[in-house]
Amino acid sequence: VLTVNGKTENYILDTTPGSQASLICAVQNHTREEELLWYREEGRVDLKSGNKINSSSVCVSSISENDNGISFTCRLGRDQSVSVSVVLNVTFPPLLSGNDFQTVEEGSNVKLVCNVKANPQAQMMWYKNSSLLDLEKSRHQIQQTSESFQLSITKVEKPDNGTYSCIAKSSLKTESLDFHLIVKDKTVGVPIEPIIAACVVIFLTLCFGLIARRKKIMKLCMKDKDPHSETAL
Amino acid sequence: VLTVNGKTENYILDTTPGSQASLICAVQNHTREEELLWYREEGRVDLKSGNKINSSSVCVSSISENDNGISFTCRLGRDQSVSVSVVLNVTFPPLLSGNDFQTVEEGSNVKLVCNVKANPQAQMMWYKNSSLLDLEKSRHQIQQTSESFQLSITKVEKPDNGTYSCIAKSSLKTESLDFHLIVKDKTVGVPIEPIIAACVVIFLTLCFGLIARRKKIMKLCMKDKDPHSETAL
Repeated sequence: VLTVNGKTENYILDTTPGSQASLICAVQNHTREEELLWYREEGRVDLKSGNKINSSSVCVSSISENDNGISFTCRLGRDQSVSVSVVLNVTFPPLLSGNDFQTVEEGSNVKLVCNVKANPQAQMMWYKNSSLLDLEKSRHQIQQTSESFQLSITKVEKPDNGTYSCIAKSSLKTESLDFHLIVKDKTVGVPIEPIIAACVVIFLTLCFGLIARRKKIMKLCMKDKDPHSETAL
Repeated sequence: VLTVNGKTENYILDTTPGSQASLICAVQNHTREEELLWYREEGRVDLKSGNKINSSSVCVSSISENDNGISFTCRLGRDQSVSVSVVLNVTFPPLLSGNDFQTVEEGSNVKLVCNVKANPQAQMMWYKNSSLLDLEKSRHQIQQTSESFQLSITKVEKPDNGTYSCIAKSSLKTESLDFHLIVKDKTVGVPIEPIIAACVVIFLTLCFGLIARRKKIMKLCMKDKDPHSETAL
């Protein structure tokens, strides 16, 4: 019978970031030398030679948030279907991040993206100037996935100016990240395309004009060169 | 000077559904008879003849949630720019509704739509089997607008089976609406298109076959009709 830390069944190990966990796999009542294999998810763990037979331990050090959900499995070398798995449940307060300073033009759309990592799952809210954001019909939309909490505002107006707080409330802690939105006046954009079009039209008109009067222009040129030679061309 | 319920400035009137509000508009220190007009948003309110001069009152009865945000404006008939507005702030606990029973096939996508009306705005959450729903990466997405709170689940699996609660927590009250999701086995659909294609192919083959042997068939037909006439065709 295979055990990990004395348990014969798969189990979940609650731990926290920065701590470490030591997992001891042992074969109970072994009648012969049994090789043990350790896997981290699907990948084999390199074991020292003296740490393989009948009893094998691995130490998971400096556990981080990213190790949440990772499984360690001890398998019997002779029959890999005999195994015990341990899944790390790394609990940590909400970690929030995002582009917290945006300047947008009146009338444009804006998206405040609050990246969130939390275990256990945090309850998410958007506050504006420290009170629950009142969602305006067809102007505000909130989208939440396991990793992000977004506020989309369409056709931004001056009153949208202000500080928006992405608030994550989990059983461990409540965290908040402020997003500053600055709404500037709508700049009357220089209409590039129409200007280019106008230049092209003027240029073409000049060309055709010159082509149409090329004889006269040639005459004038000839006169310039020899003002006295009144030769009829 | 124009006043409504003694106030000279626009103001917000807090009220609740089912109650009523009476708004008295008066001209202070009037030196002559002044006609008063009442507007509900942009629409004129019909006033009885005796209820127009120097003082005019309107009674807003059986206020409902839909009256939230509605403005009543009293204007001076002589100069409509002189006015006082009252905006109704109808506060009510969250009202939730939605299609709370869905059966879907494994592997398909599903959307639980919780329609919500609340004033003040409610904090919205999805619970599953009475604990905060743990959003799974790239499988769960929540979308919230001022009127709806949706949970989208892609590629539904059997463990998604269960009761999802749309929870609305406002300063007045916390309300909840349960959504039952039943995930049934994936039915191996009858491949209609391939069957049709096969029939068409068979039919065409038969046709061409018959056409190719039409002479032989004709001969057989002739023999059938007059078995003794061995005339060479």
